[in-house]
Formats: sequence, structure tokens, C-alpha cells
Amino acid sequence: MMNRKKNEFDLSRYLKERRDIINGFLTKILVQCNMEKELTKAMKHSVMAGGKRLRPVLCLAAAEACSGDSAYALPGACAIEMIHTYSLIHDDLPAMDNDDLRRGKPTCHKQFSEATAILAGDGLLTHGFLILSRPELFFETFPEKKVLLDIIAIISDAAGVNGMVEGQMMDMQSELLPDKNLEYLKTMHLMKTGKMIMASVAAGAVSIGAGEKELDALMTYAEKTGLAFQVTDDILNIEGDPEIMGKAKGSDAVNHKLTFPGLIGLEESKKYAEKLVNDAVKALEIFKKDGIPLKAIAQYILQRQK
Amino acid sequence: MMNRKKNEFDLSRYLKERRDIINGFLTKILVQCNMEKELTKAMKHSVMAGGKRLRPVLCLAAAEACSGDSAYALPGACAIEMIHTYSLIHDDLPAMDNDDLRRGKPTCHKQFSEATAILAGDGLLTHGFLILSRPELFFETFPEKKVLLDIIAIISDAAGVNGMVEGQMMDMQSELLPDKNLEYLKTMHLMKTGKMIMASVAAGAVSIGAGEKELDALMTYAEKTGLAFQVTDDILNIEGDPEIMGKAKGSDAVNHKLTFPGLIGLEESKKYAEKLVNDAVKALEIFKKDGIPLKAIAQYILQRQK
Repeated sequence: MMNRKKNEFDLSRYLKERRDIINGFLTKILVQCNMEKELTKAMKHSVMAGGKRLRPVLCLAAAEACSGDSAYALPGACAIEMIHTYSLIHDDLPAMDNDDLRRGKPTCHKQFSEATAILAGDGLLTHGFLILSRPELFFETFPEKKVLLDIIAIISDAAGVNGMVEGQMMDMQSELLPDKNLEYLKTMHLMKTGKMIMASVAAGAVSIGAGEKELDALMTYAEKTGLAFQVTDDILNIEGDPEIMGKAKGSDAVNHKLTFPGLIGLEESKKYAEKLVNDAVKALEIFKKDGIPLKAIAQYILQRQK
Repeated sequence: MMNRKKNEFDLSRYLKERRDIINGFLTKILVQCNMEKELTKAMKHSVMAGGKRLRPVLCLAAAEACSGDSAYALPGACAIEMIHTYSLIHDDLPAMDNDDLRRGKPTCHKQFSEATAILAGDGLLTHGFLILSRPELFFETFPEKKVLLDIIAIISDAAGVNGMVEGQMMDMQSELLPDKNLEYLKTMHLMKTGKMIMASVAAGAVSIGAGEKELDALMTYAEKTGLAFQVTDDILNIEGDPEIMGKAKGSDAVNHKLTFPGLIGLEESKKYAEKLVNDAVKALEIFKKDGIPLKAIAQYILQRQK
């Protein structure tokens, strides 16, 4: 994984290799759902729409950071990506963010129908838990039953009313807030995306039997990285290239969205993202060389263009 | 549980006692979600809207039929009721059945908002799996981890694309079918409600460590009972009392819904429901006296008025 010329870690190759593995399993899982069915087609449309696979890659990279075999983290990684995709489908619905495009393609309800999109989301969420409770149907390597139950607990806690679902609720409610404030924004992001990113590394670490100390370090890393991701997302909405991002820029301002640049300004937001990434990288010290991929992912977040 | 005067089984007392236990736990679970939040209020609105609790009662009764302590079946029973409620919330949405009333009360999206209803459903579905993976947060008695994972597999299989979600999809698609046919209708009901009713008794039986033979008998019972429930549902839509049912009658015909009376006539539908219940009861023979509550529930389905 070292670039031969510069003896540096080759992140894009690392990401591509893991994305390919994850995409292979996601395709296999969907095919087993019966591709003749409209419901499966809608699920596949959104799952295979070309996402970054940040969460599942973090899941595998966390297992590797703990010197484990990341094959054991694959069920968790795939379940998390399916659950992440369900959340995007539901967030895009007319009653929510009412988005026509996602990753440069028609959103699920635009391509199919609103009812189909609701059900495709429900199906993906539920199937994520089937994968984790019956991994032998989809994977050759998987954690033991006790560990699988722990992973289900981690993910269902992060995805539900204690996390992502409440975060989206806070996002919807933020439009009606009289006073926009930074604490609300941070909590909202922690709930909406932070907890699932934390769950991604936790699932990866637990899959290979990591210890308390490693888990704590990964939680700090993920919390900081997750927030940095949101701050840069807000920055990209102002400065990004719509062609690269596959979505219009400036939409946050038009929709009066609660954002970091809106509250603390663009330059302060950039400094804040940088500090968060530095803190995230610092938390990785205990992993030494095995933490290099996680470190590169956190740093990549600052430079990303989509 | 025997009526003192007639020495007969008192079903209404049996149902009430179990409903009270289930409602107590559901309330406790919701309170732990933070009742200040709009999301939890929306979840509670639908969960506590006064349902029959058929599925969780079946779950407890199945554990009892296998001579087990039904306290072990409570996590599965509560998870199933939360997942059932999520499905009602999503089915009622404007993009689906567009219903204003459910159990005589405003549907979730009418009482709150469409976005809140989608999220309340998502939250309930996800929380069902949290309950099963962290039962110690909510229950004093629960099955061991290996068994909990099996219950999650049973429920996620029945609730997702292999069951309930696909069943609702088939229901939506049935409106466009050129030829209405009985096989489609039976498969649709098996997927939409049958599999979750089968999962209810399976979860109850597995919770107390029932054997293969008992599980097989319960599956036959549940499949027949679930279908009988749907047939009588169609009959009630024609002959029921709107006051008792808490919803308008005749709506299936108005909406050109695929129904048993529509396909085979009202009298044939009644005979069919009766045959299904008889077959269900026959499957219970191996349980002897412990199967009496399940038998009474199946027979009650024929006489129910809502």
C-alpha cells in the first residue's frame, strides 16, 4: 500500500481496493434479493449509485488499525452502507429535503415512485440487520454470534432515535429555530452523521475483538473525523464544483440551512475543520503504522472536492 | 385462566392480561427514548393508539404453548409490535394508502407531519432491533445472546424484502394488475402480514428453546391463522360496523382493492376463513392443554368485529 516512488501511503489505491470489495459484496447481497423485483431494482439504484463508501471503508480500516483481519468486518461494513443508503433515500423524499439528484443521478423517488422509495429505504434498513444476524448467507468469514449481537446493538443505537433518525429530525426542526446556534448544529451533526461514523469504526474494531483502549481511541478519531466531514461539507456547498459534486452549490444558503460557515464564517470553519482532523489524527497514535490508512482518510477529508 | 362458572377458557381476560404486560413494557421503552422529543411523541402516538396487540400476544402464547416461561418472549414480542406499528405508519402515508384514521385516531402524519411520520416509522423499526440486541436495558428476563441473534434473523427476514416490505410493494402494485388472481392475493398476504405473524410465534417459541417439531406446528398454525385474519379483514370491510372498527367500511370496493370477497364472493370467503381456522387449530394438537390460548385466538378471529 506504499507508493513505490515516494514511499508514501497510496490512499486512492487503498480506497479503490476496499470500495471494490465492498461493492462486490453489496452486489451479491442485492442479487440474492431477486433482481426481477421492482423493490430490489430501487434498492440497487440507490446502493450502487457510486457513493464514496466512507463508512464501510472506515469499518474495514478500523479492523486493520487494530491489527485484525478486515474480512471479519465485512458484514458490519455492508450493513452500515445499506443503512446509510436507506437514510439518503428517505432524506431525499419530497416530505424531507425534496431532492431530485443524489450523487449526480435521479433520487430513488424520482427514478421510481415515492411509495417505492419509502419501501426501498425500509427494505435496506431491515436487510442490514438480516445480514448481521445471518452473515453465513452472504459471507465466508464473519464474527461469532455474541460479537454479531454487539455489532447490531452498536448500529441500531447509532441509526435510530438515539442517533441518525433523531439527527434528521433535528435537521428538519432547525429550519424553524428562532436562534441558530453552534451547540445545536454540533449536536445535530453528531446525531445525524457522527454516531453512524463512530458506529462504523466501532463495528470494525469489535468484529476483530479489539480492546477497550483501542475502541476509545477509535471513538475519538471517528467523532472528530465525522464532524470535520460535516464542516467541509458545508464549505463545499459554498466553494465546491457542482460538476464534481454532482449537486448544485449554494443550496444551503438558499434554503436557509444551519451551517458552520453561516454561524462562524468561512475562514473560521476551515480552521475548525483542520483542528478537528489534527485531533482525530492524534488519537490514532497508539495504532502506530496500522493507523496510517485511518490517518490518510481523515486528512483526505480536508482536501476532498466532493 | 379458566372461567370459574363454565370451566371454559376466558380469552378476553387472557388477552387483557397479556396486553397490559406488553403495554407496560412498550411504555417503559418509549419513556427511555426521551418523551420531550417530538419524534418520541410521534412514536408513542402510534404505538399506544390502542392496537389489538395480536402479534405480541401470539408471541407470548407460543412460548406458553411450548410449556415455556413467556417472560423470555417479551423482548421479541415488544420488538415485533414496534416493527408492526412502523409498518402501519408508513402504509398510511400519502404516497401509500393515504389514510387519515388508524384505530379511530388521526394517523401519525395527520397528527404530526409527513416527515415526522416517516422518521417515527424509521425510529420504531430501528429501535426494535436495539431492544433485541440490548434487552438488558429494558427487560429483567431475556434469552441468551445466541437465541437473541436467531430472533433478530427471524424478524428481519419476515419484516424486510423477503416479507412485509415486499408484501406492501405487491399491495401497491396490485392496483395496476390487469388480471386480479387468487394466487397473487394469497402470496401478497403471506408476505405482507403472514410472515410477521409466523415470525411472532417463531420468536416466542425460539425464546424459550422450543424444538423443531413444536416450531413446525406453530408455523402451520400461524400461516393459516394469518391468512384467516386477512380474509376476515376483507369480510369486515364489507359487513363490519364502522363505529367498532374505527374506520370506514366499503373502502376496499371504492379503491378497487384486491380482496377475497371480490375474487371468490362473500359466502365462499367466509367458508374459506372457517377452513383456515380449523386447519390452524388442528396443527395445535401436539401442544394439548398448553395450546388452548392459541386455539382460542384463532377461533376469535372468525368472530371478531374489528
